[in-house]
This record gives sequence, structure tokens and C-alpha cells, in this order.
Amino acid sequence: MSSARNVLFIMCDQLRWDYLSCYGHPTIRTPNIDALARKGVRFTNAYIQSASCGPSRMSYYTGRYVSSHRAFGNFVPLPLDELTLGDYLRPHGIRVAIDGKTHVEAPDPNVLSRLRIEPQSEVGQLISQGGFEPFDRHDGVLADPHDPEALSNKYTKFLLEKGYESINPWLDYANSALGEDKVVLSGWNMRYADLPARVDEQHSETAYTTDRAMEFMTEQGDRPWCLHLSYIKPHWPYVAPDPYHHMYGPADVVPAVKSEIERADPHPLYASYLKHRASVTFSDQATREKVIPTYMGLITQIDDHLGRLFEFMEDHGRFKDTLIVFCSDHGDYLGDHHLGEKELWHDTVIKVPLIIYDPSAAADALRGKPCDAFVEAVDMVPTFLDFLGIAHAGDVIEGKSVLPLLRGVGGAPLREFIISEFDYSFRTSTRKELNRPVKNCRTLVLRDREWKFVFCEGMRPLLFDLQADPHEFCDLGGDSRYEAIVERYSQEVAVWLSLRKTKTTASDEYVENWLGLKRFQGMKIGEW
Amino acid sequence: MSSARNVLFIMCDQLRWDYLSCYGHPTIRTPNIDALARKGVRFTNAYIQSASCGPSRMSYYTGRYVSSHRAFGNFVPLPLDELTLGDYLRPHGIRVAIDGKTHVEAPDPNVLSRLRIEPQSEVGQLISQGGFEPFDRHDGVLADPHDPEALSNKYTKFLLEKGYESINPWLDYANSALGEDKVVLSGWNMRYADLPARVDEQHSETAYTTDRAMEFMTEQGDRPWCLHLSYIKPHWPYVAPDPYHHMYGPADVVPAVKSEIERADPHPLYASYLKHRASVTFSDQATREKVIPTYMGLITQIDDHLGRLFEFMEDHGRFKDTLIVFCSDHGDYLGDHHLGEKELWHDTVIKVPLIIYDPSAAADALRGKPCDAFVEAVDMVPTFLDFLGIAHAGDVIEGKSVLPLLRGVGGAPLREFIISEFDYSFRTSTRKELNRPVKNCRTLVLRDREWKFVFCEGMRPLLFDLQADPHEFCDLGGDSRYEAIVERYSQEVAVWLSLRKTKTTASDEYVENWLGLKRFQGMKIGEW
Repeated sequence: MSSARNVLFIMCDQLRWDYLSCYGHPTIRTPNIDALARKGVRFTNAYIQSASCGPSRMSYYTGRYVSSHRAFGNFVPLPLDELTLGDYLRPHGIRVAIDGKTHVEAPDPNVLSRLRIEPQSEVGQLISQGGFEPFDRHDGVLADPHDPEALSNKYTKFLLEKGYESINPWLDYANSALGEDKVVLSGWNMRYADLPARVDEQHSETAYTTDRAMEFMTEQGDRPWCLHLSYIKPHWPYVAPDPYHHMYGPADVVPAVKSEIERADPHPLYASYLKHRASVTFSDQATREKVIPTYMGLITQIDDHLGRLFEFMEDHGRFKDTLIVFCSDHGDYLGDHHLGEKELWHDTVIKVPLIIYDPSAAADALRGKPCDAFVEAVDMVPTFLDFLGIAHAGDVIEGKSVLPLLRGVGGAPLREFIISEFDYSFRTSTRKELNRPVKNCRTLVLRDREWKFVFCEGMRPLLFDLQADPHEFCDLGGDSRYEAIVERYSQEVAVWLSLRKTKTTASDEYVENWLGLKRFQGMKIGEW
Repeated sequence: MSSARNVLFIMCDQLRWDYLSCYGHPTIRTPNIDALARKGVRFTNAYIQSASCGPSRMSYYTGRYVSSHRAFGNFVPLPLDELTLGDYLRPHGIRVAIDGKTHVEAPDPNVLSRLRIEPQSEVGQLISQGGFEPFDRHDGVLADPHDPEALSNKYTKFLLEKGYESINPWLDYANSALGEDKVVLSGWNMRYADLPARVDEQHSETAYTTDRAMEFMTEQGDRPWCLHLSYIKPHWPYVAPDPYHHMYGPADVVPAVKSEIERADPHPLYASYLKHRASVTFSDQATREKVIPTYMGLITQIDDHLGRLFEFMEDHGRFKDTLIVFCSDHGDYLGDHHLGEKELWHDTVIKVPLIIYDPSAAADALRGKPCDAFVEAVDMVPTFLDFLGIAHAGDVIEGKSVLPLLRGVGGAPLREFIISEFDYSFRTSTRKELNRPVKNCRTLVLRDREWKFVFCEGMRPLLFDLQADPHEFCDLGGDSRYEAIVERYSQEVAVWLSLRKTKTTASDEYVENWLGLKRFQGMKIGEW
């Protein structure tokens, strides 16, 4: 299809699926995202592959589950053999760039030096950026004051140019507030969430990142591109610039989804998470009433800037040739289930908003419709390839194109269940408390329409009856009456694990066309 | 230990565990290997990780199971991230070289070009050689007349220098015989197995490869080395030079280990293998009586040359500072179980001879003793490292050092069961007959002291009661009376698969020392 040319791949960080107006939040205002949903398809059962930035994003970028791409945690590099979006699109003349956050970790220097790859070479850079051209990468939260590299990023320079003088203006201005007597109050302390950021709104991360996206589109003109517009917000630090810091108040905060049943006889892993600082903090309604209005303000800010961007794109004809995806890398407990932060297994954190706008006429029939099919982060790479008419063999990518769901030509559902994995090895307190070896801290959610089963390496699994208990309060994994169901799902998990596409160095085609020793002078094994 | 300096890693190809005199064969003569067994420890339960050259060797070279290194078949490259023996030893100043066969497949050119690695560069070469310096690599059977590269190897040049004129002297002389009227009879046809090869014995592969090992040792002097002396024989073509072609006769051939029970109601995968050409051919006793004497001759030839080598090593003091390992990459059915060739699951093919000579005084007590512990091919890399005093973190290598078993300081057994995997996707006839997708042709043997359980992807498993049925004739995998046992082992396999060390890009140490966001200005997640 000749009109299929570009992909705008918008991601928010830590945006819950239910904190958008079009997804039913009663008080938040997100008119521009809602408008995109009216132009495209809004997925109501979209899941990410790990409730943690790094592994989730690596699944988005590779089209593969965490067990396959093996970047199991934040700050864990992808293996060198893993192909990303850039590897699939760039050979077709498409510019593939990052504007914002990727959370891609560069390989260990020893890995590169073993292969004599210079980290600063073009290929070294691409590997370190997950295959994206670093048009303007700023991972924000990761700015390490001890790392001059991190502080030389473009957003830091921009802030310095605007007069925000500091070793780390990202931290000291964009993510801090000012207290009485001009004391700088770090956004890391949630108690200051109701104060405005020390930057003008137009200099905030969200505004800056959006501006850069427009610059990129302008620069690229009619040449094809795939831009990963990746907002750092509403991820903590929960600090919003004026007026977004006081746009919402306690009255706008919906109640926490939690029950005392959950804490009555908790699974050991859940019990450990209940003790984390963020869980304790968010269990206090005062925290929620202080932080959530700002979380909501940060979302409305993104929405406002997306409004600006969409108008720009309309003006430049980009709604005619661009696939637009709006999604998130995972949710945020915000006190639900007595937890803070993300990780673990509840839909609160593994379900995300996903809106896809397909410019093709073939997609007209379903515009504005919701779709309740199970879709996953791994589906994005194959969807982009499908939209752009680029074939792939299918023996490395594990996701499936959702294009048929946008165009109403889908037959069988893409899948009967979703999978989301999480590895808690980096959570030192929990790993030590549970006495687990580093390599064996895997959890895996298998969720279908009826049940949510959570495999926990070395521990009993958890089980939730989603029909009777849609909020996932009551863990039946230790209840002997559910033994047969636990057994069935344990087997499903084993089969699923055995089906991972890990044999990546020989394609199906290679195996199928293998002539065996016939290639060697017609040799035949065992000829008499 | 200052005397621990070198490793001589001798491998035969397709040598059954039971075709050596010291392993109980009644008629074969292997006095030099027997002598090595008297100086070292002879393992009576040594298993390889796949009954196929390539994947078995990749496990020997990486210390990892096939599911982890993922080079699941012959001609399947290792992923670039996989570390081999050379990667572990070379940084310690040890020269690591191959003399003979490795069956390492070079990566796909696209993989290298994506990383801008020149195939002919030093690093490109090391990758293509599995980390071995190609001192004299000749994979023999793989010499492809259409590939000038393959035919430019040193053994080919040697044969040409000696006057064996041909495009492929390896095939036309070293592995062919001469018939009446000077017709060249290819060794691929087993019916000529009783005729002598068209080369002088001293120019045969086994003699040449041994000569080169001595050259290597001479060249290296007292500088440390690890030499992989890897004989192509007794792998087919079953052609031996005079006098080894007529050293044994039909009277020396032991009966085939097989039963009609096996063919009564065969598992579909086994049933398909029964139809393979090699199986049909070896089911005929006439074939066995023609081929096995030559197979035995080739083994005795290796033994004679090892005698020469060991004498040379004694003369040069190398028995004082060299760990010597003698092993095989897998067995050969030779008509047992109505099968020819290897692959599948019987001990005939997954059990191998393994003799280890440790020069240390600490090993004196156990010299000449057999050891019935379960040891595996993956144990060799960590054993070499242990012997040489090189530490490794243990979170990539899956095998375990057997040094304690050589020195009588072992406590708990290394393991309770062995694992051997085989992927039949390259066996086109079988894959198509069973209608299996390319990526899902995995089989996995879990063998302990009592049972052998064979997981077959997409099919029912097989089960053998090794106490009641040590020859593995009676498959109980479909018998409902054994359901509980099948269930137990299915779960064992699932657990084993989930424990693979696939998280190779972040070490345990990295995770354990992770300071989290504390590295970034003392940031604390969820701070109130």
C-alpha cells in the first residue's frame, strides 16, 4: 500500500492502562489521546512482557519474549545476536530513530572487545542504542552525575542553554521543586509532589521531547521514517511543571483497589513486596492524594503536547502515511494491592493502554472501535513490518501482526493467553529474604480469559479466578481444591517455555533447504 | 599447582563407549588407551549432550547444554555471545589450538556484516573456528569440492604433495579403495569397507593428525597449551588403510543388541528412524560383518598412533604437566536397536568412553580406577579451568569440574541424572513424516540410575526401566501403569529447562553488586 510510509511509535513510561479518559478514568482529561482512539482502534486487553522498563522495552524492540531476548532486568544488555526494530527496518531505507527514553543498556565492554568492536564506532553505537539512531536519546532518570557521557546528552545541554545552571539540571531543575528559603527539594521525595518543577513548562522533558519529534519530522520531509517518541513521564520522579502540578486534587483521585484478604495469608514473594518502601508509602492514602494528582497532571501534559504534535502532523499530511501507536511500557501500582511502583503480576501493571491509528482506507470500518483481543508488546515489531510491507520469516520474531485486527480481516484470535515475565533478582532485599539464587528469580504470568496463573521459580504458584475475582484479591495457588487447575497451567507454562524461538542461528528456511551431505559429491549416509 | 600447565584434549569421532578393550570389548585391541586408563581414571558413565557431531562438540567447547548454546544441529553456528574454551584459556597466555576436526560452523555472513566483522580478520577467524587457533583444522568429511576454501586445507595439501593427485584427495584416496580394473570405489559405499584405503598408512588421516600434534608440542616447547587433538575416525566413511582393513574379521564382531520387542509397537519417532537407509543396511548381519571389522581396525589404528604420541610425550616430560582427556563425541548404533548411525537416545550413542589422566600427585591414589559417577561433556571446560587454576564465575558454564573425582576429594555426586538432547529437524524425511514444524523437533533424554525418560516435543514421551531392562528394549512411555513416573519426569524436564543459564549478559556478580539507583545521587525509589 503506497500510503504506508512512516511509523510513529509513542510510548509513555509507567502509564497505567486505566489513567486515560478513553479507558474510563472518571476525572482525568486526555482529549487528544481520546481523539486518536476515535481515529484508530483502542485495545482493551494489551499486555506487556515484563512489568519493568528495560525488559518490557526489549520485548517491544525485538518482538520477542523476555525468556527469548534474555535482557531480564533493567541495566541488562541484549545479547549481540538479538535483532531490533532498526535491524529490520533500516535495510529498507527507513530512518529509525529514538527521541526520548529507551532504557537500552550498552553491552559489557568485554563483550565488544572480544569481537574487536569499538564502542564509539557506528556499529558500536547502534548496538548501544538498541538499533535506534540516537536522534535525541535522554533516559532522564539514569543521568549519572559521575558519568560525563550521561550528562552530555542533548536535553541536559538544552537546559544549560536555557540558564538552568547545575551539574545535573535534569535532576536539580526539571525534577526538583523549590521550597521555602529557596531550598531545592528533590523530586525523589514524593512529599514534594504537589510543588511545581523548577523549569518553565516549555522547557520540561515532555515539551522538549515533543519539539524534537517535530524537528525530526521536518528534517525527514517525505523520506520514510520510524520514530520512537518515548516520554519519560509519568514515571517518577513525580514532579510536574506549572500548571500541571495543581491541575488535579485529592477529589480527582480514585480509591485504591485493594482488600485485606490479600494480606491475610500472602504468598512469600508478594509478602516481601509488601515490605518495600514504595509499597509502605503508597499504602498511605495521604501519599496517594499527594502523588496521584501530579501523576495525572503529567499525563494531561503529555496529552496536551500530543495535541500539538497531531496538529503538526495533520498540517504536514502525516496522518495520510503514518501508522501511529500510543502505548506504555508498564503500569504503576499507586497503592493498589497495597503496593507501590510496578513489577509482579497484577493487571494494574502488566496491562497497558494501546491505541493504533492505521491511515489505510482498509482501516476505516473499525475507527473508534475498541478491540478486546489479547495483544502484546511483542506484536509491535511484526505489526510495523506488516504495515510497511516488509516480509520476515517468522522464526525469530515471536509476536504477531495486529494489522488484521485494525482492518477487520482477522479470523482466529491471535492467541488464547498472554505471557508476562518478571525477574526479581535485582530486588536484593527480596532475593535475600527468599534465599533465591540470582539466576533463579523468574516469575511468569500466564493469563487467559478465566484464570491468571503465576509461576514462581522455586515457590508455589499463584492462581486467581478472574471471573469470580476480577480484582485479583484472592490467591488460590495454595488451595488444594484447585490442584488440577494449577497442574494444567504448570504444564502450559512448561510447553510455552519449550516453544521459545531460541534457535536463532539457523533459520527454518536454512533447515528446510538443507541438502545434507548431498552437497558433498552426492554422499549418502549409510549407502550400501 | 605449578605442574599443571597443558591440556591434551583427545577426541575420537563416533567411537562407541564399549569398543575399547578397557571398557570390556572382548576382541578389540587398544593397549595404549588401556595403558592411559591405568594411569588415570576411566569413567563408566560419561554422557554427551547430543548424539550428533556438531551440537555435542559445541557442548564440549562451551561447557553448556544444547538448549543453552543453541547450536542444535550440524552446520548450525554458535550464537556470537557464546564463549568457548579459547575465550576462557587464551587470556591466561595459553595457546589453544585445533588439530583435526571441530565441526564448528562459521556464522552466517549477514550476522558478521551486521557487526562489521570481516570473516577473514583475526576475530572473524576465531569465531569461525569456535575459538580454536586453526593449527591444522581438517573436518574431512565436510570437504566440499565446490568450496575451494575447504579443499585448501593442510591435509589436502599434504596428500597432494605426497602424490595423491585429485580435486579431492581426501575423498578419492584417503577414503576410497581400488577395485578390479583400477576402478575407484568410494568409501561412502559400505560394501567396500573390507578393502584398504588408497593411501599408505603413514599418510592416512589418523597418522597425519598425530604427527601434527607432535609438531605442535615441539613448536610450543615449555610454553603452556591446550591442544584439541580431534580424530575424524572411526566415523564413516568406514575405510581403513592397510593393515587395519583386515586386522579383524567376522569372528571378532559382537552380536547386535536388539530385540523384536522394539519393533512390535514402536514410538512414531523410533519407527521413522527404523526406515532410514543406515538402519535398514545395518539391520543386515552381512553389513555388520563387513563394516565392524573395519570400524575396529580404525580404532586400533588410533590406539597405535596414540601409543606413538604418548611415548613422545613421555620423552618430552609432558606426562608431568599435561592433563590428558580421551573421549568421543557420540557412539554409533552399528545395528544395535535395528539402527545405524547415531542420534536418538539409547546409551549406545549417548554414552561415551572418557579417560582422564591428571599428572598431579593428588591423583595418584585413584590411578587405574574406574569411576561410575555421572559425568557429561559439559564438564570438560570447567575441569580444564580447575586443573589450570583459572577461576570462573559459574553463571555461564553449566558443567562441573570432575577434578575432585580424579583426586578422591569428591563429596556429593556431581549430579543425579544426565541430560542429552537431540533435534531431528535436519532429518527431512522424519520431520515431514511426523509433520513437525522445523523449530519443534526437540528430543531430550533424562537418564538417572533407574529410568531413562525421553521427552519428544509434540509426541508422547518414551520410558525405559533400566533396572529390569538394561538394554532399553521395552518402551513403557505409552503404558498407563507408568503414568505417575512419566508425570514425575515430565516435571523434572520442565524444571531442568527453566534452569538453563540463558541470562548470559549480566553476571551474578553484576546483579549482586548492583547498587540500584543509589549510584545516581543516592536516589531511592519511593522515598517519602
